[in-house]
Amino acid sequence: MHLHIINGPNLNLLGKRETALYGQRSFDDYLTELRQIFPHLHLSYFQSNHEGALIDYLHQIGFAPTTKGIVFNPGGYTHTSIALRDAVAALPVPVIEVHISNIFAREKFRHHSYISPVARGIISGLGLYGYRLALQYLIDVTQ
Amino acid sequence: MHLHIINGPNLNLLGKRETALYGQRSFDDYLTELRQIFPHLHLSYFQSNHEGALIDYLHQIGFAPTTKGIVFNPGGYTHTSIALRDAVAALPVPVIEVHISNIFAREKFRHHSYISPVARGIISGLGLYGYRLALQYLIDVTQ
Amino acid sequence: MHLHIINGPNLNLLGKRETALYGQRSFDDYLTELRQIFPHLHLSYFQSNHEGALIDYLHQIGFAPTTKGIVFNPGGYTHTSIALRDAVAALPVPVIEVHISNIFAREKFRHHSYISPVARGIISGLGLYGYRLALQYLIDVTQ
Amino acid sequence: MHLHIINGPNLNLLGKRETALYGQRSFDDYLTELRQIFPHLHLSYFQSNHEGALIDYLHQIGFAPTTKGIVFNPGGYTHTSIALRDAVAALPVPVIEVHISNIFAREKFRHHSYISPVARGIISGLGLYGYRLALQYLIDVTQ
Amino acid sequence: MHLHIINGPNLNLLGKRETALYGQRSFDDYLTELRQIFPHLHLSYFQSNHEGALIDYLHQIGFAPTTKGIVFNPGGYTHTSIALRDAVAALPVPVIEVHISNIFAREKFRHHSYISPVARGIISGLGLYGYRLALQYLIDVTQ
Amino acid sequence: MHLHIINGPNLNLLGKRETALYGQRSFDDYLTELRQIFPHLHLSYFQSNHEGALIDYLHQIGFAPTTKGIVFNPGGYTHTSIALRDAVAALPVPVIEVHISNIFAREKFRHHSYISPVARGIISGLGLYGYRLALQYLIDVTQ
Amino acid sequence: MHLHIINGPNLNLLGKRETALYGQRSFDDYLTELRQIFPHLHLSYFQSNHEGALIDYLHQIGFAPTTKGIVFNPGGYTHTSIALRDAVAALPVPVIEVHISNIFAREKFRHHSYISPVARGIISGLGLYGYRLALQYLIDVTQ
Amino acid sequence: MHLHIINGPNLNLLGKRETALYGQRSFDDYLTELRQIFPHLHLSYFQSNHEGALIDYLHQIGFAPTTKGIVFNPGGYTHTSIALRDAVAALPVPVIEVHISNIFAREKFRHHSYISPVARGIISGLGLYGYRLALQYLIDVTQ
Amino acid sequence: MHLHIINGPNLNLLGKRETALYGQRSFDDYLTELRQIFPHLHLSYFQSNHEGALIDYLHQIGFAPTTKGIVFNPGGYTHTSIALRDAVAALPVPVIEVHISNIFAREKFRHHSYISPVARGIISGLGLYGYRLALQYLIDVTQ
Amino acid sequence: MHLHIINGPNLNLLGKRETALYGQRSFDDYLTELRQIFPHLHLSYFQSNHEGALIDYLHQIGFAPTTKGIVFNPGGYTHTSIALRDAVAALPVPVIEVHISNIFAREKFRHHSYISPVARGIISGLGLYGYRLALQYLIDVTQ
Amino acid sequence: MHLHIINGPNLNLLGKRETALYGQRSFDDYLTELRQIFPHLHLSYFQSNHEGALIDYLHQIGFAPTTKGIVFNPGGYTHTSIALRDAVAALPVPVIEVHISNIFAREKFRHHSYISPVARGIISGLGLYGYRLALQYLIDVTQ
Amino acid sequence: MHLHIINGPNLNLLGKRETALYGQRSFDDYLTELRQIFPHLHLSYFQSNHEGALIDYLHQIGFAPTTKGIVFNPGGYTHTSIALRDAVAALPVPVIEVHISNIFAREKFRHHSYISPVARGIISGLGLYGYRLALQYLIDVTQ
Repeated sequence: MHLHIINGPNLNLLGKRETALYGQRSFDDYLTELRQIFPHLHLSYFQSNHEGALIDYLHQIGFAPTTKGIVFNPGGYTHTSIALRDAVAALPVPVIEVHISNIFAREKFRHHSYISPVARGIISGLGLYGYRLALQYLIDVTQ
Repeated sequence: MHLHIINGPNLNLLGKRETALYGQRSFDDYLTELRQIFPHLHLSYFQSNHEGALIDYLHQIGFAPTTKGIVFNPGGYTHTSIALRDAVAALPVPVIEVHISNIFAREKFRHHSYISPVARGIISGLGLYGYRLALQYLIDVTQ
Repeated sequence: MHLHIINGPNLNLLGKRETALYGQRSFDDYLTELRQIFPHLHLSYFQSNHEGALIDYLHQIGFAPTTKGIVFNPGGYTHTSIALRDAVAALPVPVIEVHISNIFAREKFRHHSYISPVARGIISGLGLYGYRLALQYLIDVTQ
Repeated sequence: MHLHIINGPNLNLLGKRETALYGQRSFDDYLTELRQIFPHLHLSYFQSNHEGALIDYLHQIGFAPTTKGIVFNPGGYTHTSIALRDAVAALPVPVIEVHISNIFAREKFRHHSYISPVARGIISGLGLYGYRLALQYLIDVTQ
Repeated sequence: MHLHIINGPNLNLLGKRETALYGQRSFDDYLTELRQIFPHLHLSYFQSNHEGALIDYLHQIGFAPTTKGIVFNPGGYTHTSIALRDAVAALPVPVIEVHISNIFAREKFRHHSYISPVARGIISGLGLYGYRLALQYLIDVTQ
Repeated sequence: MHLHIINGPNLNLLGKRETALYGQRSFDDYLTELRQIFPHLHLSYFQSNHEGALIDYLHQIGFAPTTKGIVFNPGGYTHTSIALRDAVAALPVPVIEVHISNIFAREKFRHHSYISPVARGIISGLGLYGYRLALQYLIDVTQ
Repeated sequence: MHLHIINGPNLNLLGKRETALYGQRSFDDYLTELRQIFPHLHLSYFQSNHEGALIDYLHQIGFAPTTKGIVFNPGGYTHTSIALRDAVAALPVPVIEVHISNIFAREKFRHHSYISPVARGIISGLGLYGYRLALQYLIDVTQ
Repeated sequence: MHLHIINGPNLNLLGKRETALYGQRSFDDYLTELRQIFPHLHLSYFQSNHEGALIDYLHQIGFAPTTKGIVFNPGGYTHTSIALRDAVAALPVPVIEVHISNIFAREKFRHHSYISPVARGIISGLGLYGYRLALQYLIDVTQ
Repeated sequence: MHLHIINGPNLNLLGKRETALYGQRSFDDYLTELRQIFPHLHLSYFQSNHEGALIDYLHQIGFAPTTKGIVFNPGGYTHTSIALRDAVAALPVPVIEVHISNIFAREKFRHHSYISPVARGIISGLGLYGYRLALQYLIDVTQ
Repeated sequence: MHLHIINGPNLNLLGKRETALYGQRSFDDYLTELRQIFPHLHLSYFQSNHEGALIDYLHQIGFAPTTKGIVFNPGGYTHTSIALRDAVAALPVPVIEVHISNIFAREKFRHHSYISPVARGIISGLGLYGYRLALQYLIDVTQ
Repeated sequence: MHLHIINGPNLNLLGKRETALYGQRSFDDYLTELRQIFPHLHLSYFQSNHEGALIDYLHQIGFAPTTKGIVFNPGGYTHTSIALRDAVAALPVPVIEVHISNIFAREKFRHHSYISPVARGIISGLGLYGYRLALQYLIDVTQ
Repeated sequence: MHLHIINGPNLNLLGKRETALYGQRSFDDYLTELRQIFPHLHLSYFQSNHEGALIDYLHQIGFAPTTKGIVFNPGGYTHTSIALRDAVAALPVPVIEVHISNIFAREKFRHHSYISPVARGIISGLGLYGYRLALQYLIDVTQ
């Protein structure tokens, strides 16, 4: 089973930026743990600060017959990108939107997501653990 | 470890009401499955259509020293109840807000939650499976 | 044929409260008249100031096979209760929303109803006579 | 007793336009039935797609001493015409606003009526039967 | 093939009113040119400043079996008339909304059209040439 | 010098409708007085409840070389008619917008006028006397 | 003289919940002090987390001839309950709305109260002392 | 008969500031003309850039038994001063609000006036001539 | 103990202006009573219609070591003055905002106060008695 | 004559994505047809999912002396990109905005375009045929 | 070269009020430094808490032929004063708006400035140093 | 001391695009002048039309120990990019937001900046000279 984790802008700074909000662990470090937790999973990872590159990647892997699901944290593009929404809506596979922090406990402009209405579901505020839950959902429910 | 699942108004109709949206399984049935999945967990369940009864229950169990966390689906009160929000905010234990359907893909008045800003996190749109993920988070992360 | 009239908060004060707006007749008194007008109708009546009790009652009678329709005046909950809306939307029988006064001629916050979009129809401003018209509709049209 | 039914724009298409929404019966056909149901009533009918013609008619019949009430479905002008509202507000007789469909279950711009605050009451969503109920109210209550 | 061009309020002033915005050519003059460009087309033209007359005309020609399409510039009614929208929505033939000027480059109240959501498409800002394009679309695509 | 007074919908009811708000004098009566006050003025009068007829009249007299100005009370169309606004904006002569009552002391939807931004000026709340002042302005200032 | 203090949802947690905001004293403790300060006053106390129970209580004591006034802290229902507002508006005795914290210095959704427009007055931000001032007002002014 | 003209902030710059908008004539110059036009009138004039001074002056002259009316151009305070509104509302004499330019043809924040709802009437856009019309109204109508 | 009462614009008219709303007693009269009620209090009084003078006074007395508190009724500046808010926020002593009438039962623009969020608390609708309660709070609580 | 067609994000999926909405034909296929229809036209094509790449391309070709016009479908960036708007506004050649679907019949956030006010005109809802009409306009009108 | 620095309300408290936000230095102290930095500059300074006094001063010095520019910190009037805006707009010399704190990082009501659109430019958040930069701009650029 | 100037979209067109608004000088030309003015400064320059490239660059240089500050003109992304805001907020060095034109004197959508709340300060409307002032601030204040 092939799943993808895609991180949007500034998430390459995890463990480096605003650690009170996002924690002190880099995503690469967590990715290693996720691969240990799900040893039978084919898990790909992509991060970009470019809205266009995220769309390109979604197009490239989203229609691949081996792809069974996507865990997507669109970062700051969550709240502003209709282009990303259209890309997600176009895909035949389920997309789970994940946010590390609780976006509803932050500034008002983070309360609205253009992605949520076209995602299968959303997990927000559960830290890096949210990615794990999203993967588990895709493994158990959409198989 | 003692955890609580609390369901708000109309969730007693699960499996009976709008099955296209909420599925055909009753919550009692799912609860049995959850207890099998987490056999070492002390799991309590409460459902009420009364806002006041939900507040009373939160007060009663939320300060109990054995209570380690709460999974809460406030149903229709999610979007209208500041009283419930205040009750949740008062508790010393983490509360995970869960919605069976993707509330962001439904009517606009369901996009805002008074509970989310005071919850630890939110899981929406992953069906009954969302309760399981919330429990797993509370077991793994907040122990 | 079994029909139900359900009145929400403060309607127990009819004939006592703001009589310039709501008239001087108690609902019990009018109920007697309605039963005389529709002698062959099995007509039940329920009033509560509790949102939860209204939901409980709707659940209890709304799915009963004998219930053919409901006349519902949700009072002040009309404008604030998504939980009641969800309860109404879940029912397999037609619900007619009735308001004694013309809610559109009053304060702005009374102009919006969460119930109306899921009701079969709405009658507002025709006084107690509105209940009679709603019953007549249910008898004639939905038989 | 002389009552008037006035229909606004596009209601001449009844039975022809969007029959899923408005039904398959023409208004003329229903008018015949109404006259049979209320054989002692002097019932006049006027339909126009012209806002000005509707105002003219309201002026012409609304002050006539024989006119005892008006049943008015302003169609699309419901939501946009302050001129019609002023005409209704000027009349010394009760006006019942009727809509065939449930306007609150349709597009948001149909939820607001300029006419409702100056009407005696409103009946919406009960199909053509709503006209009958409005007439019955005028006969019984305002006599 | 029978097509109709319908112009709304003030468009009888073309070539006379605000020529910087709308150009110096009368519509009659342009109509002659259009008939030369499309010699095999049966092309009717109607202009009125009366909302009701526009609705009447739409009703009259819109259901005629020979009518294959309508090019409609609702002028100032574009932004205010739900009655016209309902008339357009009722028709079985495609309607193309045309505006001579770029309505999105003008006052904010001209940015919203009640007609657009029920039209097949919209052409705005291309001058009188927009009518020609709309006709060409109806000839080529809807034949 | 030729000036025009144009009254919009429901102003034919002056002296008859809501006399507490508009006074008890008919406009015809006042017109006689105005002609006495300004004996050398060629003063025309037009009233219609039809938006389209008002536009037609503005087109007909607004471009006439003898017309030197227009006093216009658009009644309820003041707040809803972009078509009338466009007609006024197209004219080469000054238009004074007059309201008998103080529209800013009434319902909120009467506080906005589509006509005002394209009128030369506005007089509101000075009763029928406002027409006289508007005429005097046109006579003195625009001669 | 018989006065009532009524506390809404979560105020049973006083001294236990968010003590930085609400202080560390329980309301029962303060009630004892109030009874000592006003020894000649018949002072009743009611608290509930149930909106319906608050309405029931208002109905029950508000019309009693011995009741001279009510001090009401509606807690979170302040901002959401039209049903409570209607109950307060129906009463023949003065109601003083009291809030322990300064609701205007907190989240925006706490700035609006449905109760205030129908209360005699409001006291907010003066801690538990606000109840004392409200009682003193009722004793001195409304006797 | 004693009337007052009061000008608010920046109107001392008339003839000096933005002459394209306000004209090239100083108000003192125009005042001389007004006194010639109305030779029997006792006409006082006051200008201040101080909101408080305008309130003081209104208090001082507004209750004087000789004062029969006030012509008031509140300048920029028109749109922001509730304190001035309260001062005007308190006066027993009619106040006419005058604006030299057409405030409805300018920036949106100039379209709303706190003064208008408590003024007798408003004249806007007729240049300095507007003051003359306002005086004439006060002389003719309120005598 | 030195306390200050500061009244904003138009409050010098108390007993003179809108007596139905504000009562018939002058503030000077009430001040005498307050000094009798609190004989040991050093009570200063200041009223001005000038926003700047109110700020100046707040600066002058607010930092004086003898000043222990301020009772402030900002009148119409309540709803418009950020400058006054900043002055209040800068002071090291508690400020109680008092309004004689219930501002929440009046026009909507009176429902928002720029002062409330930086005041210690607010008392509204209790008439002149509200000043007494505010003084009593400052004496009892902040000593 | 050199014209450019530029397509924004997700339009590379044409024929593959949401075919009910956008049709089953790829753009490359349609481009071939366009080149056959306009054999004398030098027609370039560019598609990118990258906002920055679209801006770069507009800069690169928009100032070229051979470029006579641009047909631009900005896709999801239509509604969010001020940067693209600025790029379009900077160009000396006409830009026609084209949308395949009728954006006004879709979600509300698609009703506003940042590009439209700086485009020459807009064509929406006419399918791929809209590109052809835009090219024809540029060829006929701007030559 | 004669330049003016004008400070609005509460800025006389600099170094005394909210020093975490505004710093601990008085403006007089900083003024001395500015005069040392720009020894050849004729630098005047004015501060007032009175909106009217600020307008008076702007009128007085703004038209003086020696005045070459103004540095203006309108304090709390920034967000509320249209009268000050009009005064600034009337002046023939450039005005630079300066704020010590970053007004965009504070409460939402501080994000909008009535002055900015009529100022030459704005400097915000750079502390007292912002005044120096504004002076330098006026010296270098507008000489 | 190492400082960076970063320019966002379309600023590569400076001197070429809308010269009335932005001036006729290219930024490269001005950069040479800045390096002459600040000869001891290590000044880097980066421009991109790609949101992602701007984020990448901020990440790359913002954490470098030699970087002491950044002057950032985000162009059109100022008003739409939460991703850029997050990148700026993550940096440990001060960022000064600069706009060449006065963004507050332009279209309303340019009045809001996502960057300003996380920038140290903002300079807008002072032309290219604004960059120089920003550099001078960083050199003098943050050293």
